[in-house]
Formats: sequence, C-alpha cells, structure tokens
Amino acid sequence: MAELALTQLHPSLDDPVLLSMNLLNDIASDHPRAVSFAAGRPYENFFRVEQLHDYLGTFVAHLTDVVGLTDEQARRTVFQYGRTKGIIHDLVARYLEIDEGIAVDPDAIVVTVGSQEAVFLTLRSLRASPQDVVLAVAPTYFGLTGAARLLDMPVLDVGDAEGGLDLGDLERRVTAARAQGRRPRALYLVPDFSNPTGVSLDLATRIALLDLAAYLDLLIIEDNPYGVFQADPGTRPPNLKALDTRHQVVHVGSFAKTGLPGARVGFVVADQPVVRGGRPAGTLADRLSLIKSNVTLNTSPVAQAVIGGKLLRHGCSMIAANKREIEVYRANLRRMLAGLTARFGDSGPVTWNTPSGGFFVVLTVPFTVDDDALRRSAREHGVLWTPMHHFHHGMTSSHQIRLSFSLLDDASVDEGLDRLAAFVTAESRAAGSAA
Amino acid sequence: MAELALTQLHPSLDDPVLLSMNLLNDIASDHPRAVSFAAGRPYENFFRVEQLHDYLGTFVAHLTDVVGLTDEQARRTVFQYGRTKGIIHDLVARYLEIDEGIAVDPDAIVVTVGSQEAVFLTLRSLRASPQDVVLAVAPTYFGLTGAARLLDMPVLDVGDAEGGLDLGDLERRVTAARAQGRRPRALYLVPDFSNPTGVSLDLATRIALLDLAAYLDLLIIEDNPYGVFQADPGTRPPNLKALDTRHQVVHVGSFAKTGLPGARVGFVVADQPVVRGGRPAGTLADRLSLIKSNVTLNTSPVAQAVIGGKLLRHGCSMIAANKREIEVYRANLRRMLAGLTARFGDSGPVTWNTPSGGFFVVLTVPFTVDDDALRRSAREHGVLWTPMHHFHHGMTSSHQIRLSFSLLDDASVDEGLDRLAAFVTAESRAAGSAA
Repeated sequence: MAELALTQLHPSLDDPVLLSMNLLNDIASDHPRAVSFAAGRPYENFFRVEQLHDYLGTFVAHLTDVVGLTDEQARRTVFQYGRTKGIIHDLVARYLEIDEGIAVDPDAIVVTVGSQEAVFLTLRSLRASPQDVVLAVAPTYFGLTGAARLLDMPVLDVGDAEGGLDLGDLERRVTAARAQGRRPRALYLVPDFSNPTGVSLDLATRIALLDLAAYLDLLIIEDNPYGVFQADPGTRPPNLKALDTRHQVVHVGSFAKTGLPGARVGFVVADQPVVRGGRPAGTLADRLSLIKSNVTLNTSPVAQAVIGGKLLRHGCSMIAANKREIEVYRANLRRMLAGLTARFGDSGPVTWNTPSGGFFVVLTVPFTVDDDALRRSAREHGVLWTPMHHFHHGMTSSHQIRLSFSLLDDASVDEGLDRLAAFVTAESRAAGSAA
Repeated sequence: MAELALTQLHPSLDDPVLLSMNLLNDIASDHPRAVSFAAGRPYENFFRVEQLHDYLGTFVAHLTDVVGLTDEQARRTVFQYGRTKGIIHDLVARYLEIDEGIAVDPDAIVVTVGSQEAVFLTLRSLRASPQDVVLAVAPTYFGLTGAARLLDMPVLDVGDAEGGLDLGDLERRVTAARAQGRRPRALYLVPDFSNPTGVSLDLATRIALLDLAAYLDLLIIEDNPYGVFQADPGTRPPNLKALDTRHQVVHVGSFAKTGLPGARVGFVVADQPVVRGGRPAGTLADRLSLIKSNVTLNTSPVAQAVIGGKLLRHGCSMIAANKREIEVYRANLRRMLAGLTARFGDSGPVTWNTPSGGFFVVLTVPFTVDDDALRRSAREHGVLWTPMHHFHHGMTSSHQIRLSFSLLDDASVDEGLDRLAAFVTAESRAAGSAA
C-alpha cells in the first residue's frame, strides 16, 4: 500500500506555521458555544441569499447595457474560461480611485482568488533563488509566512515599534542580510489596521518608509484588507500605493471583508515595469498572470460577477456598500475599548492598544499565553481568542492576545469580555501563586 | 523608479512553457473571425444566466431542507469563509460513485480552484527536494508542465506508444532517473480522451500500469477532465482510481467541462495515508488542505454552491446533466472524422487518430508545423488550431496538429475543415517545392 512519510513531503507540511490555523480551528470547533474573539470574519447579519442573485443580475446587465456585449457574449463572459487577469479589473480600478485614492491602469491589476493568492503569486515571482528573502513587520499575518514557507523563502522579522514600524530596524535588517549574501526582495506589511495588531502607520512614517525602501532598493508589498473600515472618517492617511510615485509598491487588496468572503475575490496591483536585456517586457502584473495561469488559471468569473455586481450597486465604492457594517465595527470597537477599561481599569497590569479602525485589539497580560492557556479559556471560561505567538514564527508563547470584534453584537461583546475578565483573573492568580 | 529585470524573477517567468498559452491566445485574438479548432472549451449554446440562480437556489434549499441547517447557517455556508477542503465534498463523493465508480471517503477530497490548483497542490506536496521529479506521458497538457516549472520540479517524458502509454519506457525512465540520483515521485497522465491526443488507455494497460507503479513505488496522478464524454456509452474502461486497491492513485477531477468553466471548481482525491515517525498522520488530502490554506485559502463557496446545485439538479450525475452536450460532442467527433476522410482520403499523406470520445483529434501532416505555420493558417486561411509542439517541452515544431471540436456547430466543423484542407494543400505544395 502506498504510504507517504512526512519526511518525504515538502518540509512546510510539518511546519508549525502551516499547522497554526488548523490547531486554532480545532480548538474553536471543540467549543462551539464559546464566545469568539478569534474569527477575523466580517459581520454577517446583513447577508441575504437574494443579494447573490441581485449582484449577478446587475453585473450581467452592465455587460449588455453599458459595455455593449450581446446576451451571448455576456453569458460567455460569466460562464466560460476568461481573461487570466480577470473580468472586473476596470471596476476594481474605479474602486481603487474612489475609495483608496489610487490611480492605476486596469491592465496592471490581476484579480486573484482572495488576497492570499495575490501574496502567493507575488512571492513566487520574487523568489528566484535560495538567497531571496522577504521581510515582514512582526507580528505578521500567518498567510504571508505560510506562503513564504511553501516557496522555501525565508521571512526576516522587522520590529514594529510604537508607530507600527521601526525604520531603523528595517535598514539594519536589510544591511545585515546583504552582508550575509542574502537578497532582500520586499517588505510585507499591513499599514492600515494591521492584522494582528490593529495598528496603522502615520503619514510621516509612510513617507519615510517609501524613501527608505527606494534607498534600499526594496519593493513594498502593501496588504490592505481593512483600509475602508476606519472608525473616524477622514482621519486615515493615504495608503502607500496612493503615495507611490516610483512603482515601489505592490498593492494587495481583498473583497473578502468588503464584498463577501464566499466569493474569494482579491487582487494585486503590480505596475512595476519589467525589463528583458534592458528592454521593456511588460509589467509585473503580466508576469503574475503567467504564474496564475499555472496555479488557478482564472479567478471564478461567477464569483467575480458577484463582486462586480456589488461594486456596481454602490457606485464602485465599498465604503458606500459597507455603510451599515462600518457602523457596526465602529460601535464594536468603542464598546470593546470601554468594556476593557470597565473590567481592567486604566492603571492595572492588563493593557491594550487603541486602534482607530479595523477588526482587532491587542491585549497584554501579566502571565504567559500559550495554546494551553487558550484551551483553558475555552473550556473553563467559554471564550476564544488568538494567542499572539501564532503571529511570531518560532515562538510558542507570549504575553499578548489578539481580540477580534468584527463578528459580534453588543450582547456578545459584553458577555465575551466578562468571560475574558474571569479568565484573566484566574490566570493572573495562578501565575501569582506559582511565582 | 523600481524596475525589475526578468533575470531577477523566478526562471519560470521567461520559460517557453509558461509563455505558450499567451502566444496561442495572442494569435487567436489577432484573428477573431477565424474558425477555431484551438479552444478546448465546453459547448456553450446551452448556457443560460437563469441556471446560475437555479443552481444557487437549489444548493441553499438542500442545505436547509436536507442537511437541516437553519437559514442563518445556510447563508453563512455560502457567504463566509469555509472549510478549506470544501463544502460540496459529499456531493462530489456521490458523483464519483455514480459516474466514475469510485468509492471514496468525502474527507479524502479537497475541492480546488479547477483541476489546475489540484495538480499544483499535489506537485507542491511531492516536491520536497531538488532530486524530486515528476514523469508525464508525452505529449503533455501544459498545465502540468507549467505547474512543475513554478515548483522547480523537472518533468521527465514517458513515451505514449500506440495504446497511449509505453510501459517499458516508463520503467526504463524511472530506473535511469534513480541511477542518476533523482527521485521519481509520480507519473502524470490523462487516461481517458487525453489532452492533447484524445487517446484512451485500454483496460489491460491500466491494470499493468497499476502493477508496474506499485513495483516501482511510484504514485499516479490521474487527471480526468473528459472521462464522462464517451461517444459510445458503455465502452469506457474503469478509470485508474476505480481500479486502485493500494492508494496509489491521486485522482484529479474538474467541473470545468461538465459543470461550467466560470465556476472554476475542481477537486483532488488523495486518500494516501501519511505517516510521521511511523505513526498515522492523516491523509495526503489533509496535507494538500494545509497547502491550499496558504495558496487560495478556500475555493469560493459561491462557486461551489453553483456546482453543488447543478449536481443536485441531476442526481449527482454529470453524465445526466450533460446529456445534450454529450450528444453534441459525439456528433461533432463523427462529423470531424468523416469530414477528414472526405477531404484527405484514407490513403494519403495526411493521417489522424480516431478517439472514442473527448474533445480532441490529432492530425499528422507531411510538412513542418510551427507557430509561423499557425500564423499563416490564421491569416491566409482563417482557421485556428494548436501546434502539437506546445505539448512537447523543448520542441518548437512537429508534424502534428491538435484539433478541438467541442465548441463548434455543424456548419463551423464543415467550414473549418474546408479551410484546414486549403491550408494543408498550400503548405504541402510549399514543402514539396522547397524539397
């Protein structure tokens, strides 16, 4: 009987980074009645099946009435194999202009199976030899680390400091890597309401980062799943791609949070010029499209049509499309922050950060947080969250917890925080008596 | 300005294999009025937008009425992030039993973004070190070769002989590769109505292949996009997975041809046991799921719902769902074979094979066929087809042409063959006068 030893499969397949998500999902599914601060899913109470029909119909009508296709051509666009770079690239470009202030040629966009594929394609293009490495602001979303593992591409940590990025550390890491014969290709980060920290870079840091990256000859992979979810409208600085005058930024976006996760539609803007023997050879987007041809071929045109229809229904603004959700996230964030103060005070050993939007808050506690602590929390206190060490590869514990609040209603926030407080009290007491 | 030299990107991105599809698409789009024997797309005249609504509605009703989910749970299943291995695995398992005679635990199935992702995930799992190679029956579908290139995994050709596979050659290639320190991991092939040749393996060859692969300790990757499209019902031998008693076969399937291409839904059956330190550690499907988490995360649940609904509408039989299409393909195949005889006779220098189903016929001509010949055919004769050398990596010409007939009606078949005959006559004359 054919039996496969793990030692004969790709090393990533027994790597803690790839196993993280499974382990967390297993703990969650063992405790279905727990209140969950774990899942980074968008609010779902406004979902209706009829929306799918409406969005599909809207997109097909757009193809015939606005684009001018015949019924047969419109059907073919949605049903058949299609353009590798996608069929809603023009709508994505309008969305980027309206919501994100990014002006880009639609042909420099590749529509992908979520932002995960966008990151995977980008790393594949840049990982040309074993010397190539990617840098990432730590703590790092494990989708980046996992994709890099699959491609045998080391990830070098860069410190996040107070403001979300330690520029001095970035320069030191790049210089040290080069001195070791490594080739740093890009810095990955989530500059707006980061996963896992919820922190955003201020404008001065963004501008300084672009200048430093130019000086260091380093691309920036800007992952932007949460940008439109700002709690205080008008306070968000432009994203890196909007400030990019030198084609330094590969911008990765997602409609999983703003559209619907079940469509699995994301995209990458990659307008970097590529040269062959000094002569123009298209853009990086053209090359990512070649890779995509051999990974997933197309992003489902049906799924793209659903997202296209949602964009069209709201003038290509996902801020407009998510008016109600943005209000929920804003209210939940405020309730979380007020609820934490009410339960832990503002001078105690338990502290937390105060993001200005997004889905996440980070709690720092005076005891060690590992996966067993999460299991105790789920079993004894009925509350789930994400241990921060999963976002630091190589670590198995820390003193931090990621709290996600995107999926909850008022009562769940309150109940969840009560349970969390009971867990923190119990663990602090146990840590105190052990000390 | 950031500018990327191709020499600093992954080598596959300047590889003829990856550029093949682009080149062929470019020639096709330069000649929109040509009759096309090139596109391997399913027949599209039965597509209706209403079907999407019907399929989605059918699947959601199944979740509530049969599976017993609440409306809220059903919505969540289709709208939210979901199970990495997919949400229609049980329906896929029923389809495999009904149409393919394969009995498999639904948990050993991973639903993928088309069969391309299934092949990519499988190769990623098996390519553990630079010694690992995959074998493929030549000529080979370029999706396999392209995926292997992205993973720096060499592809070793195996001869196809008369019956579709030269078993002696397979054994010699594996032995020679091992003698060179290489580690052959699997043989990739399309045993039913192969792309590009249209040829099928007979039952004796299938059984002998399974025995030889067991002897050689080699997995088999069976890619089966066309199996249900047999022209003569009841004559198709069981596929390799249906004959597999030793977990030797990784079976890759696709709903692109039977469902709809625009859903981009395929799957892989990988029931191989995996061991860690001699102890059970799940199946290969579990490991492919880990890879998928970091490549595309999920296959769009919306797209899966469309395919799930189509399966449910037809008792989980894609043969039943494609009754009309199968009739079209059968009629087109007969019209192609009769039309070739009418135009080229049965004793001339032009020959072709006679597949018993699928989408393709292969023509052998007495002159050299390269990409320039295709350009002349398109420009001067208004007919497109696929030069066979694109399925032989490293070759730039051959004497063969792949003719696809799946997308055509009677008039197009006749007109296309007339144009093809004119092209063949002109090229034969030019070759004769040059000789």
